[in-house]
Amino acid sequence: MPQSQQPVAPLTPTLEAARSASLALASAPSEVKNRALGAIAAALRGSVDEIIAANRRDLAAGADNGLTSGLLDRLALDAARIETLAQAVLQIVSLTDPVGEVVRGSSLPNGIKISQVRVPFGVVGVIYEARPNVTVDLAALAIKSGNAVVLRGGSAAENSNRVLVGLIQAAIASAGLPAESVQTIDPFGRAGATELMQARGYVDVLIPRGSASLINAVVTQSKVPVIETGAGVVHVFLDESADAQWAIDIVHNSKVHRPSVCNALETLLVHKNAAERLLPDVLARLTASGVTIHGDARTRELYPDSVPATEDDWSAEYMSLDIAVKVVDSLDAAIDHIRRYSTGHTESIVTNDVVNAERFLNEVDSAAVMVNTSTRFTDGGEFGFGAEVGISTQKLHARGPMGLPELTSTKWIVRGTGQVRA
Amino acid sequence: MPQSQQPVAPLTPTLEAARSASLALASAPSEVKNRALGAIAAALRGSVDEIIAANRRDLAAGADNGLTSGLLDRLALDAARIETLAQAVLQIVSLTDPVGEVVRGSSLPNGIKISQVRVPFGVVGVIYEARPNVTVDLAALAIKSGNAVVLRGGSAAENSNRVLVGLIQAAIASAGLPAESVQTIDPFGRAGATELMQARGYVDVLIPRGSASLINAVVTQSKVPVIETGAGVVHVFLDESADAQWAIDIVHNSKVHRPSVCNALETLLVHKNAAERLLPDVLARLTASGVTIHGDARTRELYPDSVPATEDDWSAEYMSLDIAVKVVDSLDAAIDHIRRYSTGHTESIVTNDVVNAERFLNEVDSAAVMVNTSTRFTDGGEFGFGAEVGISTQKLHARGPMGLPELTSTKWIVRGTGQVRA
Repeated sequence: MPQSQQPVAPLTPTLEAARSASLALASAPSEVKNRALGAIAAALRGSVDEIIAANRRDLAAGADNGLTSGLLDRLALDAARIETLAQAVLQIVSLTDPVGEVVRGSSLPNGIKISQVRVPFGVVGVIYEARPNVTVDLAALAIKSGNAVVLRGGSAAENSNRVLVGLIQAAIASAGLPAESVQTIDPFGRAGATELMQARGYVDVLIPRGSASLINAVVTQSKVPVIETGAGVVHVFLDESADAQWAIDIVHNSKVHRPSVCNALETLLVHKNAAERLLPDVLARLTASGVTIHGDARTRELYPDSVPATEDDWSAEYMSLDIAVKVVDSLDAAIDHIRRYSTGHTESIVTNDVVNAERFLNEVDSAAVMVNTSTRFTDGGEFGFGAEVGISTQKLHARGPMGLPELTSTKWIVRGTGQVRA
Repeated sequence: MPQSQQPVAPLTPTLEAARSASLALASAPSEVKNRALGAIAAALRGSVDEIIAANRRDLAAGADNGLTSGLLDRLALDAARIETLAQAVLQIVSLTDPVGEVVRGSSLPNGIKISQVRVPFGVVGVIYEARPNVTVDLAALAIKSGNAVVLRGGSAAENSNRVLVGLIQAAIASAGLPAESVQTIDPFGRAGATELMQARGYVDVLIPRGSASLINAVVTQSKVPVIETGAGVVHVFLDESADAQWAIDIVHNSKVHRPSVCNALETLLVHKNAAERLLPDVLARLTASGVTIHGDARTRELYPDSVPATEDDWSAEYMSLDIAVKVVDSLDAAIDHIRRYSTGHTESIVTNDVVNAERFLNEVDSAAVMVNTSTRFTDGGEFGFGAEVGISTQKLHARGPMGLPELTSTKWIVRGTGQVRA
């Protein structure tokens, strides 16, 4: 790190190196960036033992510190998961480079040509929890989109991340790009995260990924612009006309396919005129998969194998095999319930009624609104974006699954031949 | 205002009314929104005397409070300016409604159709200074884009804004939309502005317009996502090959056409090999228009009718008939200077060299980068956007002149026929 006569904030040399690397990345051709990504994939495949050894130290410390089995599972890397990571990096190679894409443009009446083109943000900060796969995904997405990235991973994954960042930096350098394109500030601890959130002028955008409390802390404390990725209190509404088999399959898939992720179903709403026809079979299928039903009074009349829902259940993001179920009087009542309790992530209606489908799509204000599909489809991979930065639940800049274009800004290119303003 | 058993923050009823109005606006057809805008234009034309009377009270108070002549000019409304405002509102009627525009979409391999469509933000907050025209422009842009707006104008324009908001609300109501689509929180004073910045969940985006200190205060204090509109330390670089007449015209127009606005030129850079050929004529034209030249040593050798530039001049946004001038050794030196001192608003190169033009466009990271045109063209009206929300100098969401699309978010519409995730 450079020496200075002035006292500098501890992160300053790291952030200056990131800014400098971002200039090289911004003008790097796609083929050079792709070469760096290829080298990262090769390094992952060539260092499986080293990565696993570091990861084992994190897992042992995590077990000592009482991490839950769910968190330990997210933290764990094995040969298969490392191979999946390498393949994701290679998939990003195959995606179109967003930098330079012309978003719109026109000729002005005076002959000036204007075009709005995608450019990298510059320096992207990411604060996340103990998921070392995020380290690789974000590094690859950032490089492809021409951004330098400053990573603050969870301390629980510190050994894994140190090894991964070392491999990534060597791979980037081998392609002729600055190693400082990807840096970790884990050695600076919590103070580093705090400083990162204050680093206006150094960091162009900050992306928190993790628990609701982590995201909330970043959103409220950061002076750098934040893209909020988010919690999902996700709803499915079974309309009066819902097809019974679709209802059964969509509710089951939305809840059970992967309960611990943000696009998993949390609250099921059913039209009162369809409750008797649909609920017993829909809920029996869930019960057979080990789901606990938290039902309102009308649900429990129809399906006694359930526990009483409390007010807290309507805003719960269970992330487990639990579901809240409520019988509502109308589509309007369903939309009102969603407005009140949704986090704006994903909601789906199961219906055979065209008017109700359109009303649901128009009036429910969430990042993804669906008709007759599983909520599990709100996902960058499923949407065809390759990897995913996260799923934005805010309305500024990006909403829903974020891929490469969401890691870019734009600038206006204006070409004239001596024009001045009259 | 609704009564509550609980103590509520003073702004809560206003913000709840805005949220409620935003739901009606989000689904209002274009023809209804356009009818409201037509009624606003008619109300402005029909109430010229009333508006001018209120504005005179503000002007008198401003004179008593020692406002500068520049600020008093921005505050003043007369019949001609009110007619210009009415015409701007009617121009917004003629623009395409951004709500519902499909940004992109595709069919997934399983037959699901996804499309990303523009939707209103919901509730937009605007904090601005004593320019009553902003009240009308923002109200019209917000309604057209389906957003409710909560306005905090400067206390210096309080009488003008109260009359304008009253007229606007009556006009909106006459078109069948909620009057609370446009509200002012001026009666809540500074505390209202502070509360507005904390109103996460009520306000979707906050736009500060005004002085650098106002913008900085909002950016650093707001917990609501902010779009920064900004200061402009704008540069023109005269390259070695610059056409002399273009150089003279572009520099003069960029500096003198309207010195008090953010796209006006502040610092002129000249290649050392062109300085002797270009500077005397370029600067003489400025001097003839009353511009004070703040030159570096090499500039003053070539053009003695100038004062010495200090370090502060390179970061000055004069907003007056002053200009900083520096001779640089190369294009690289020009780009380095711009990187160091620019606020990222607008920079223009005057050159006849294709390679240098492309390097400047690629390597200068500002909202607008130009070749051979006046910097005064960075403007929503000039770009064909109709009116303008402001000029964003941040990289998130919007960059450069902001029109109607920049007042929208998007959501993903997902249509299936029973698909679930495998």
